[in-house]
Amino acid sequence: MKSSPEHRLDLGRRQRLGMVEAIWGEHKSAEQIARILEELHRAGELALVTRVSPEKAEAVAALLGRERGEAWLLQHHPQARCLSAGLLPSPESRLGRVAVLSGGTSDLPVAAEAQLALACHGIATELVLDVGVAGLHRLLERLEDLRHADVLIACAGMEGALPTVLAGLLPQPVIGVPVAVGYGVSAGGVAALHGMLASCAPGLTVVNIDNGYGAAMAALRILGCGPGRSAAWTQGS
Amino acid sequence: MKSSPEHRLDLGRRQRLGMVEAIWGEHKSAEQIARILEELHRAGELALVTRVSPEKAEAVAALLGRERGEAWLLQHHPQARCLSAGLLPSPESRLGRVAVLSGGTSDLPVAAEAQLALACHGIATELVLDVGVAGLHRLLERLEDLRHADVLIACAGMEGALPTVLAGLLPQPVIGVPVAVGYGVSAGGVAALHGMLASCAPGLTVVNIDNGYGAAMAALRILGCGPGRSAAWTQGS
Amino acid sequence: MKSSPEHRLDLGRRQRLGMVEAIWGEHKSAEQIARILEELHRAGELALVTRVSPEKAEAVAALLGRERGEAWLLQHHPQARCLSAGLLPSPESRLGRVAVLSGGTSDLPVAAEAQLALACHGIATELVLDVGVAGLHRLLERLEDLRHADVLIACAGMEGALPTVLAGLLPQPVIGVPVAVGYGVSAGGVAALHGMLASCAPGLTVVNIDNGYGAAMAALRILGCGPGRSAAWTQGS
Amino acid sequence: MKSSPEHRLDLGRRQRLGMVEAIWGEHKSAEQIARILEELHRAGELALVTRVSPEKAEAVAALLGRERGEAWLLQHHPQARCLSAGLLPSPESRLGRVAVLSGGTSDLPVAAEAQLALACHGIATELVLDVGVAGLHRLLERLEDLRHADVLIACAGMEGALPTVLAGLLPQPVIGVPVAVGYGVSAGGVAALHGMLASCAPGLTVVNIDNGYGAAMAALRILGCGPGRSAAWTQGS
Amino acid sequence: MKSSPEHRLDLGRRQRLGMVEAIWGEHKSAEQIARILEELHRAGELALVTRVSPEKAEAVAALLGRERGEAWLLQHHPQARCLSAGLLPSPESRLGRVAVLSGGTSDLPVAAEAQLALACHGIATELVLDVGVAGLHRLLERLEDLRHADVLIACAGMEGALPTVLAGLLPQPVIGVPVAVGYGVSAGGVAALHGMLASCAPGLTVVNIDNGYGAAMAALRILGCGPGRSAAWTQGS
Amino acid sequence: MKSSPEHRLDLGRRQRLGMVEAIWGEHKSAEQIARILEELHRAGELALVTRVSPEKAEAVAALLGRERGEAWLLQHHPQARCLSAGLLPSPESRLGRVAVLSGGTSDLPVAAEAQLALACHGIATELVLDVGVAGLHRLLERLEDLRHADVLIACAGMEGALPTVLAGLLPQPVIGVPVAVGYGVSAGGVAALHGMLASCAPGLTVVNIDNGYGAAMAALRILGCGPGRSAAWTQGS
Amino acid sequence: MKSSPEHRLDLGRRQRLGMVEAIWGEHKSAEQIARILEELHRAGELALVTRVSPEKAEAVAALLGRERGEAWLLQHHPQARCLSAGLLPSPESRLGRVAVLSGGTSDLPVAAEAQLALACHGIATELVLDVGVAGLHRLLERLEDLRHADVLIACAGMEGALPTVLAGLLPQPVIGVPVAVGYGVSAGGVAALHGMLASCAPGLTVVNIDNGYGAAMAALRILGCGPGRSAAWTQGS
Amino acid sequence: MKSSPEHRLDLGRRQRLGMVEAIWGEHKSAEQIARILEELHRAGELALVTRVSPEKAEAVAALLGRERGEAWLLQHHPQARCLSAGLLPSPESRLGRVAVLSGGTSDLPVAAEAQLALACHGIATELVLDVGVAGLHRLLERLEDLRHADVLIACAGMEGALPTVLAGLLPQPVIGVPVAVGYGVSAGGVAALHGMLASCAPGLTVVNIDNGYGAAMAALRILGCGPGRSAAWTQGS
Repeated sequence: MKSSPEHRLDLGRRQRLGMVEAIWGEHKSAEQIARILEELHRAGELALVTRVSPEKAEAVAALLGRERGEAWLLQHHPQARCLSAGLLPSPESRLGRVAVLSGGTSDLPVAAEAQLALACHGIATELVLDVGVAGLHRLLERLEDLRHADVLIACAGMEGALPTVLAGLLPQPVIGVPVAVGYGVSAGGVAALHGMLASCAPGLTVVNIDNGYGAAMAALRILGCGPGRSAAWTQGS
Repeated sequence: MKSSPEHRLDLGRRQRLGMVEAIWGEHKSAEQIARILEELHRAGELALVTRVSPEKAEAVAALLGRERGEAWLLQHHPQARCLSAGLLPSPESRLGRVAVLSGGTSDLPVAAEAQLALACHGIATELVLDVGVAGLHRLLERLEDLRHADVLIACAGMEGALPTVLAGLLPQPVIGVPVAVGYGVSAGGVAALHGMLASCAPGLTVVNIDNGYGAAMAALRILGCGPGRSAAWTQGS
Repeated sequence: MKSSPEHRLDLGRRQRLGMVEAIWGEHKSAEQIARILEELHRAGELALVTRVSPEKAEAVAALLGRERGEAWLLQHHPQARCLSAGLLPSPESRLGRVAVLSGGTSDLPVAAEAQLALACHGIATELVLDVGVAGLHRLLERLEDLRHADVLIACAGMEGALPTVLAGLLPQPVIGVPVAVGYGVSAGGVAALHGMLASCAPGLTVVNIDNGYGAAMAALRILGCGPGRSAAWTQGS
Repeated sequence: MKSSPEHRLDLGRRQRLGMVEAIWGEHKSAEQIARILEELHRAGELALVTRVSPEKAEAVAALLGRERGEAWLLQHHPQARCLSAGLLPSPESRLGRVAVLSGGTSDLPVAAEAQLALACHGIATELVLDVGVAGLHRLLERLEDLRHADVLIACAGMEGALPTVLAGLLPQPVIGVPVAVGYGVSAGGVAALHGMLASCAPGLTVVNIDNGYGAAMAALRILGCGPGRSAAWTQGS
Repeated sequence: MKSSPEHRLDLGRRQRLGMVEAIWGEHKSAEQIARILEELHRAGELALVTRVSPEKAEAVAALLGRERGEAWLLQHHPQARCLSAGLLPSPESRLGRVAVLSGGTSDLPVAAEAQLALACHGIATELVLDVGVAGLHRLLERLEDLRHADVLIACAGMEGALPTVLAGLLPQPVIGVPVAVGYGVSAGGVAALHGMLASCAPGLTVVNIDNGYGAAMAALRILGCGPGRSAAWTQGS
Repeated sequence: MKSSPEHRLDLGRRQRLGMVEAIWGEHKSAEQIARILEELHRAGELALVTRVSPEKAEAVAALLGRERGEAWLLQHHPQARCLSAGLLPSPESRLGRVAVLSGGTSDLPVAAEAQLALACHGIATELVLDVGVAGLHRLLERLEDLRHADVLIACAGMEGALPTVLAGLLPQPVIGVPVAVGYGVSAGGVAALHGMLASCAPGLTVVNIDNGYGAAMAALRILGCGPGRSAAWTQGS
Repeated sequence: MKSSPEHRLDLGRRQRLGMVEAIWGEHKSAEQIARILEELHRAGELALVTRVSPEKAEAVAALLGRERGEAWLLQHHPQARCLSAGLLPSPESRLGRVAVLSGGTSDLPVAAEAQLALACHGIATELVLDVGVAGLHRLLERLEDLRHADVLIACAGMEGALPTVLAGLLPQPVIGVPVAVGYGVSAGGVAALHGMLASCAPGLTVVNIDNGYGAAMAALRILGCGPGRSAAWTQGS
Repeated sequence: MKSSPEHRLDLGRRQRLGMVEAIWGEHKSAEQIARILEELHRAGELALVTRVSPEKAEAVAALLGRERGEAWLLQHHPQARCLSAGLLPSPESRLGRVAVLSGGTSDLPVAAEAQLALACHGIATELVLDVGVAGLHRLLERLEDLRHADVLIACAGMEGALPTVLAGLLPQPVIGVPVAVGYGVSAGGVAALHGMLASCAPGLTVVNIDNGYGAAMAALRILGCGPGRSAAWTQGS
């Protein structure tokens, strides 16, 4: 029996699931992230690292050095709190369109994470902001527009009613993303999560709190972006 | 030091708060309820007993006997799960109008409790049913009508989004009543309660789960039905 | 302002969302259910009532009487704990195929509710039973077979790991349904719910505990069964 | 389909609800707040930003610069943790009087937020401090005085019994605001929240923990400050 | 190693702690209770069995038979939901006086359990009923009287504020007993429990929900009823 | 793709894990259990069904009929709430000794389930009853005796301190089983579970609440009862 | 109606309850604490401020200045995290003896707060450290010694079993103080709190998590230190 | 009665349980840790201090000084967040082999704590990393290898399914360690804990969240490392 090295990437994931390798950066050190990026670069894979603070992003960049950073196309996406390495594919609208809605400005980082994760797979997204249910007319104004999306990702904190109202009005798949924005009973996002799960609108599905990446991958599954297409998602060289 | 008898009514409540004495019947035996009704009858007070099952209502009626039941105007309100004894005042619209809304048929008992508790104080109410947010148009159709109410009581189970949407559309006082209707994360009404407390609509207030009576008393306070008017709420003889 | 009747159906739902009207029967009396079925029959709509105990099903049938029951094609589905009224459409495989998986025999009622709800919309389903992760080989044996489904609905109680393992192996949309089967920390299904939400498998989405109907409607949305097709889902006359 | 800009204000809120636009500042950056203030200034609206730390307040002021800060009448209210921009209307007692009570010194920021939010609408408030129920006489001494208020806002942390005792003694509307002051079981304010919801005093309503702003808006609704009056709440020019 | 019989009594408890052996009857069968009573009778000990439903009490009596029941002085205390066997000592006021207060009629079973448990040790108690804080004057009227008690046991459900108010007014030891009377957030007694633990009144202590027996034993410890006095608490023959 | 039958047994479990097939009976109907027993009988396997109420046990026996019941050696174990079918192996002390301790009489069903599950694998157990930590001497008296056990299974409800005290005194593996016996904060067994997990005694491990079967299987794993020995655990014919 | 100043001390507390005025410092600023100390000094009262960090203690001292600090006998008690101002009375053993026990070194701050709060009232205390139940012999060794205490205060984090074991062995009043020391399920002290409330040892009472001060005041009530004696607890001048 | 010093070590633990004295460093100051190390050194005992931040480790080293640090063989283990003092014994494979598995890189600190705690007792361990169930093949590849381990310790955050899958595949004792890695519902590790307790795999046992040390001690108990062998675990002199 032999101990394994400090990390073992699941390089078969793109073949198996048609998804780019994504690294959850929150509990990893800059050193661990840099080593993982190196390995993915060597394997010719596009890489997405989520939940990276500005400080950690900077530390990773410093560890790699400017030369490698440029060669690997390392990019920091501050609003989405992510790093990417490798060439992001151009969005192709024939793959489907995803609308990402958010109840308020405070939900932006989660919405941006979902947008970036889809962009890594060549999926075009539109952001529809500040359509919280306390000012319903702002949502109703956009309704016709939203009919053209294939999947709706609705990010909301507080009481999280946006996906419920949306799923009562439109027939497409609606993925609710509870956001950890709030205070008192809504702190941490559990009130929004429960509101979405308890929804009286039929067929709404939900992902974990703040899980913009997961909502994006669910949309990708829905768009049928199976293994057959995945060749396009390598580093782009 | 002398032990007190088994119950002591708060007969000053009508003078102090302008409210009819209400008895929470859930954990009381039929015998205890009958004794309390007797005491209130002797004091010339109108009585409202909430949370009374059909079986308990029958047992109370049997204990009092037909003669006393008739003399005291004992009434069972099955939908509201309540008993009343004494003459309910005629509703007077000059005291104000309260609209009681409910998300679905399952919320009816709570809405009916609120209506009856207001009826005990001569307040006129209207019931607006099945206006859940998953079929928003049913609510929007009633909007103009609702502008004429002085207070809105909104009962909702599941994700409890009705009062939020309502308070975003109308300027009156809105009292949310979470209802213990649901399953999984919405069982027991906590998801609805948290949804209402977490609401992004400004100025929505909330009472305990299933507390139709409490919402009615809050509406009464708002309508300014202070001690001065309470003379009308005796047994009506 | 006029009080509304005891229930108001959302008859626009089929047009808006492409979904048959479904009634949540748990907190409704047999009388309320019978009145709703009557109204839907008059409107020429297929009806599905969920969460109906055998006793309540019998009471509804008795209230309607044998003649109307037969004319309306009233059916009791005991395993799914549902009633339907109207002719269920024949399953058409061109609408897509949904596999419904379950961890154990105890999850059957939830799986059966999902199957029936899809059957009401003409969607073909297959049941794949007893593939809990404690005996992984039973799932692995079925893997190739499962590649042909368009959507996977995975019902699981206890620790709820089945959808996680599934979503790590297959690229299709996976909808997890936590089941309220268990005891101690798994009683009520919250451990399974949290296990699915916390899943490290990318793109898994979740519905409320025991919500087989909701998972079916999510699958329907994914299969793109929009308003355009809904003409087929009337009573079948 | 076109993506929306980073925020969209609900400028119809004053017309619809009779309320000044309020911005929840906690999860917004100084840059986002500054941009929103600019937009509101351009629209001629009075602005209230809540949950602003001293550091963020300073950063906003720096971003705007001294000239604009003065022109816009930018004010930092440190105890209430708020920013306002525009001329606050003079309090008019004919609009009604609100008493804001607090159990202890630690509840002051929440009470001050409620007072400021009412001041933005020209409502006069009085602060009644340190009337916690562990020293009941301090509350009883103020009772006669409190009879002259139209609405009572009671802020309390720990066990949150103040609004219960108050609502048992006085007939006016009482709005309980649980405060996140405490430790152990009272940390975060949930014990106070539950104590208020569970109250045996009839007609007490509750808002979310620390939601002084929400309590103020509920009081405003009660005082009947509807759309008709809102002309007065522009920037004061 | 030898397996032990089905139960082993802690007969040293009276010597060690000065307390009568008490049996928690809730999860025990009538057969198990009968066997334990037999063993305690043989050991010459007074026995108290708590949490016994009327049906179980009857079953125990039937198992023992009338003769043994009479010889052992078997008594059913329906309000306290207890059985006792053996002669209860006469209350001796020199051992101290305990006042048992309750917020409402629904708290009576818990208060009665506490009174009976003290009666088993010869302690005199007084019951002070219906002194809930929503009608404060009822409590204030009894204040002078209560100054003569050595220990105060305060039973309260709902928001559980009674012991807080009491401990703010009087200097004696106050033991709070949360009662599982309520609904919504107060169902099960946790809101009352947390309210008492979070109390801002200094020096209030608390026992488990519904634990009237435990509060009585805490009072006994306070009254200094140590091992030296316990001779009096045998069967009384 | 073909739907599977209603249940699929994991007949490889004995080979893989060295464990008899066990069926969790709580959520299964008598019909389902009877069908599973039939299948196991045909496969020549010993069967254990846990969480079977007396009524369900009787229904299963009736469904099978007396003849099959006898031929299959069907046995009801009322204290353990289990059914077994097939010949239980004779306990062999060379396989190791397990002591099953319990805090009180109310924990017996859980302890008995653990004993029976071990008996199905030929493991000898001893029951040590009523050794709760409130009467510590009863445990200390048995200490020397307990040194001879290979594994200690400690069942406890209420505060669940027994396994902590035990693991502080003895060096063997200690498996804590929280028991759902209690009321208030200890109702449902979560207080006991958390007490055991939080234990300051090093090396205590825990299973789910009431999971006597799981504790037994953990003991079996510890005793090294691997696949090699499992031949002995067939029906015994 | 006139707004009250920023704080109003309850100067009648010493007369009413026999307790020194104590200020909970956690949510108060150094400025607020300094103003309160000034007011208490002027009233000739001894002052105790709890939950004061070293930084805040220093800030208060700086605000008062060296001269006033010395004149007022301002003292920082770092282990107890408290400030006192005024002369602490000499401990008088005739007032009773309190033993403060703690499970481990990490519980020291809570134990020290209890000791200091009693010292402010002239009560002698002994500290008995590191007597956690995982090493039971350390507690058993001290048992005889503990028999001489009038009240036992037992502080424990983790599973919180110490007060249970203690109350099973000794007949005095035992006050359990759960301590927020632990991780995982014991983080925050709730597991210890529930363990103490769920205790199978009769007559154990409990205070809020980390509430050393509250346990001390409960002990003071038990020792009978009523209003009559309170003259001694002024500033000592 | 005499107060005890600030800490009292349980030096009998090695004799009683066969375990090295371990100090939980999280809530202790560097000064307290240094004093404890000194005492253990004087007693000739090997010492392990867990949960020590890099800053605290440095502070302890500074307090002891270089000379004593070297003489005592003080070592900082940054990945395991531990300090040790004294000579660690050489691993002896005849004592048994433990495999420590982890779902991802983020679980490493917990796995490393378990490895170090076993190393302190001379037990050889292997680390098997990144075998989370979302990429099942990585685990299946290692299966044959894992058959040679005597005990399996499986660390996992998120949904915590790893130990369930493992215990369904292999017959050895499996100890699950939930890890506080995650966000939303998995934050803090409770979802992983509940997933492991709720596991449908028979015989899996669990320790507290992040308790790598506890899992190691449970493995030690299983390996039969009783008091007889403990002579080897002194400082190595």
